[in-house]
Amino acid sequence: MPVSTSAPAPRHRTAAPADRRYILTLSCPDRTGIVSRITSFLADINGWITDAAYHSDETSGRFFTRQEIRADSLSFDIEELRERFDRVGAELDADHLQVTDTAVPKTAVLLVSKESHNLYDLLGRWHAGELDVNIPLVISNHLDLEPVARMFGIPFVHVPVPADAEGKAAAFAEIRRLAEEHNPDAVVLARFMQVVPPDLCEAWDGILLNIHHGFLPSFRGARPYHQAHARGVKLIGATCHYVTGELDAGPIIEQDVIHVDHSDSPADMIRRGRDIERAVLFRGLTNHLQDRVLRDGLRTIVFA
Amino acid sequence: MPVSTSAPAPRHRTAAPADRRYILTLSCPDRTGIVSRITSFLADINGWITDAAYHSDETSGRFFTRQEIRADSLSFDIEELRERFDRVGAELDADHLQVTDTAVPKTAVLLVSKESHNLYDLLGRWHAGELDVNIPLVISNHLDLEPVARMFGIPFVHVPVPADAEGKAAAFAEIRRLAEEHNPDAVVLARFMQVVPPDLCEAWDGILLNIHHGFLPSFRGARPYHQAHARGVKLIGATCHYVTGELDAGPIIEQDVIHVDHSDSPADMIRRGRDIERAVLFRGLTNHLQDRVLRDGLRTIVFA
Amino acid sequence: MPVSTSAPAPRHRTAAPADRRYILTLSCPDRTGIVSRITSFLADINGWITDAAYHSDETSGRFFTRQEIRADSLSFDIEELRERFDRVGAELDADHLQVTDTAVPKTAVLLVSKESHNLYDLLGRWHAGELDVNIPLVISNHLDLEPVARMFGIPFVHVPVPADAEGKAAAFAEIRRLAEEHNPDAVVLARFMQVVPPDLCEAWDGILLNIHHGFLPSFRGARPYHQAHARGVKLIGATCHYVTGELDAGPIIEQDVIHVDHSDSPADMIRRGRDIERAVLFRGLTNHLQDRVLRDGLRTIVFA
Amino acid sequence: MPVSTSAPAPRHRTAAPADRRYILTLSCPDRTGIVSRITSFLADINGWITDAAYHSDETSGRFFTRQEIRADSLSFDIEELRERFDRVGAELDADHLQVTDTAVPKTAVLLVSKESHNLYDLLGRWHAGELDVNIPLVISNHLDLEPVARMFGIPFVHVPVPADAEGKAAAFAEIRRLAEEHNPDAVVLARFMQVVPPDLCEAWDGILLNIHHGFLPSFRGARPYHQAHARGVKLIGATCHYVTGELDAGPIIEQDVIHVDHSDSPADMIRRGRDIERAVLFRGLTNHLQDRVLRDGLRTIVFA
Repeated sequence: MPVSTSAPAPRHRTAAPADRRYILTLSCPDRTGIVSRITSFLADINGWITDAAYHSDETSGRFFTRQEIRADSLSFDIEELRERFDRVGAELDADHLQVTDTAVPKTAVLLVSKESHNLYDLLGRWHAGELDVNIPLVISNHLDLEPVARMFGIPFVHVPVPADAEGKAAAFAEIRRLAEEHNPDAVVLARFMQVVPPDLCEAWDGILLNIHHGFLPSFRGARPYHQAHARGVKLIGATCHYVTGELDAGPIIEQDVIHVDHSDSPADMIRRGRDIERAVLFRGLTNHLQDRVLRDGLRTIVFA
Repeated sequence: MPVSTSAPAPRHRTAAPADRRYILTLSCPDRTGIVSRITSFLADINGWITDAAYHSDETSGRFFTRQEIRADSLSFDIEELRERFDRVGAELDADHLQVTDTAVPKTAVLLVSKESHNLYDLLGRWHAGELDVNIPLVISNHLDLEPVARMFGIPFVHVPVPADAEGKAAAFAEIRRLAEEHNPDAVVLARFMQVVPPDLCEAWDGILLNIHHGFLPSFRGARPYHQAHARGVKLIGATCHYVTGELDAGPIIEQDVIHVDHSDSPADMIRRGRDIERAVLFRGLTNHLQDRVLRDGLRTIVFA
Repeated sequence: MPVSTSAPAPRHRTAAPADRRYILTLSCPDRTGIVSRITSFLADINGWITDAAYHSDETSGRFFTRQEIRADSLSFDIEELRERFDRVGAELDADHLQVTDTAVPKTAVLLVSKESHNLYDLLGRWHAGELDVNIPLVISNHLDLEPVARMFGIPFVHVPVPADAEGKAAAFAEIRRLAEEHNPDAVVLARFMQVVPPDLCEAWDGILLNIHHGFLPSFRGARPYHQAHARGVKLIGATCHYVTGELDAGPIIEQDVIHVDHSDSPADMIRRGRDIERAVLFRGLTNHLQDRVLRDGLRTIVFA
Repeated sequence: MPVSTSAPAPRHRTAAPADRRYILTLSCPDRTGIVSRITSFLADINGWITDAAYHSDETSGRFFTRQEIRADSLSFDIEELRERFDRVGAELDADHLQVTDTAVPKTAVLLVSKESHNLYDLLGRWHAGELDVNIPLVISNHLDLEPVARMFGIPFVHVPVPADAEGKAAAFAEIRRLAEEHNPDAVVLARFMQVVPPDLCEAWDGILLNIHHGFLPSFRGARPYHQAHARGVKLIGATCHYVTGELDAGPIIEQDVIHVDHSDSPADMIRRGRDIERAVLFRGLTNHLQDRVLRDGLRTIVFA
């Protein structure tokens, strides 16, 4: 596995103890008294809340919350916190419950093909300390972007994806093996031009993110800027979403658009669209890594 | 036909002679020398150009232009101008050629149902002198908005649209008869909740405008905000487009969006979306009335 | 006082009992346990929370909250609720504490001069039931907009404002007397082209709102679009803010901008800017009337 | 001068002959017949126009144009083209006249201090072939960003800027000498935290660009995000402008904003603002390098 050893160290910051947080997320059926139950739980353990968000969804009848508390405000460790929070979750019939520790860094594996702008952007932000994550590996079905990963000192593995079913299955098995060695919190399709097979979508459900260069649900599939140009839309967009078995139809995390007009050719749209792709992927991935995204069927709750 | 005679006169401004313009639009197959031909034509007739726009479309291989000239800069009248411009158009194999006079007011007929916000907005802007058009008639398949039209002193005609095919055909024949009495430059579906039959779409091709409360081509058809909510999008939009026989699939004139998040219910989207519907319909209609919109198949050239 | 009696009744909706809400707002010095104290208070009284928002401000060290509860979930009346909430406020050293009842309509008095677009927009939205407020009076220092108020059946009073100090003081005393007869929750300067004297700004502190047609703090004072054009900015804006003694320098409630370019003359900016003025004033006023705006010195907390 | 020789080659594309363009820009006093004169000139030389833009400024009374023509459509070279175009300019009393060749690459020198995000972004885009320019040198008054320049294989020179007048003058003389060795078309202050002395602003008038992390003319000078937070604005912005002797007051090329609310601390604004800084600097610099920006006093014409 080629590793560049000459690249400069990235500019990561070490958090002071006062900056260490436990992040608690929970979803459950909605009923009265939930907020009170959660806040009294946090008050009982003397938790110093630094950020709190709640959402009661009228449509689904479900309740969602995310709480950030200072780790140094508790007199016990995260395992004890998890046990106690589990008991609250059980009372509330929680279907999702999680406690994470900001002192434990998250890990993301990137999958790319030939388009470089998202890779440059993510690695540049990572190197600058703006994207707080470990990136142990870039995997690609082409060799084009190896020098970019190498520049930033990130291991790059080339896994060609053949057209035949058997070869393709073997390639994705290899991709899975390589990624899962790193126990990733996110696998990011950063303009990876292959359709991920359903079983892998399922295995990575909730951690597999894609950036689609169109405003979904419009313009699913290939060449969305060309589709947008042909349809004559006056805005083009990008969408960061969780990947499910159905192509470009998973829960949306983040979207944005820019205005275009008749003078923008498909090539102009491709060029101008890169800025929204970059920004949308970065925001979507950051919110995912900070446990700000909760799922409610096809919809997402994003406590940004 | 009920006409309120008590309403105050709208605040229309009378243009000074120096503000009178002839507007020339043309489209033709693209080739070198077109701009030079048009500008030398305008120079030859001593036309004082106050606004000029050109577009060569790479995809369709067609050329489009719009020229505004001061009427008082010419030594002859508009008929003579049309004749001379026709000759230029013939040289260039023009497939669209038009000369209009800003001193001749345009006319728009409005079709509405029960939703009032677009009607209030258009009539308020018209009354304030901001929307420069005659509005001789509001037609509706319901009685709800009669008081609104009456407030502004605009005749209102109620044409119920029955569910059966024969009744529906008769209703649309009546709507057509009523509207065409006024020789309209625009017929505006301002949240008219009936599907206009194909033959009328064809008859009014290029003058029939709709405001759709969704970001087309996503969410065609009924209840687009509910569709958007169910899909979990992070932006909602509105689209002003020409109506063709295919539902919500005509050439787009103007679009805009606003950000929404998980806390926005369908009712919130309906409420918040009204502002973009208003703004998008007003801008789309204004550009249409000022001869700023040229068509290139399913796409529009908007010289805004 | 001229009152049009012929105007149609506005389309106000009557709320069902289940839609009646009590809105509680509070601000106090920040410390741990506040959220728990408030939520346990609401749980103790069996309050059915339909919307809840919190903010701890790092800079000012203050805490802010807004809670909406269903009126029919309480077993006692609003006076009892106020007494009980007062005790919570006292515990928390609250410097702001308020309970309002959505069944008691709010009142807004509008002050205008000659520009009509904001008046048309507010009255149109009010008449359509979109802006939920009583508007008992429009006051103006000019007669131009009397027909607009009259169309909508709103009393209009003309109070000329002379240039001399004594005359001006008398005029503003009259304006104050007229407005305060209606005990307004908001006095809105909807393009009122007079500087309100400091004593009146103080008397109406927190209820006097202005729409400024510039992106404050840029372009304070007169002719902001001309200032923006001369400076060559690429975006123009509008700002809704509370009025204080210092011109165009009060706490900002809402702002927005649109892109402009070199082809936009000052007249184009005036025309195009109206859409953001309308939207910004409507959103700012609505948030104010729904008790969504809390003040933190020169900053506002807007629980939108 | 430290030069990394190990960095991978950037992904620059070689333009095909058919993509080579001559770009003609001109400004002159406005009068009738200018467009015709220019288009007939281009028709006479058989120039194949691929992009054309015109602007007549009502306020300044000046005319501006930019024309792109295919180099291979002319039967003579650029020197001959310049001579012929000079004659047209003389007829029109042009005060600005320029012909450039896209086959001759432009050069930009970057000045930075400690903030890395703009440097990462520009170098990443340059390396990806998205920013079409030579970058022969990064100059900084600090050593922090040397590894970043080195990663991308760009020479980095450290020129400390002392606080005393004499030392500062010497430092800027050195900066000038270093930059001018490369005959730059742009000198970019990419978060360079020193005030450039007036004589150097004058020497580099029209090629010295700055990215200011505020929506000018608001929040000039230091710590604009903190100023914006203290003022309580609801939008924050970034501005790319030409640098003149007056601090943050030069002609604006590009601006953009994002919405913020009360929950955004100054640190949040700094973090979130980076995306607009990046996008605004890239667009402003690209438009400058493509000769799309013409100056009209304090205003700019941007033929984007």
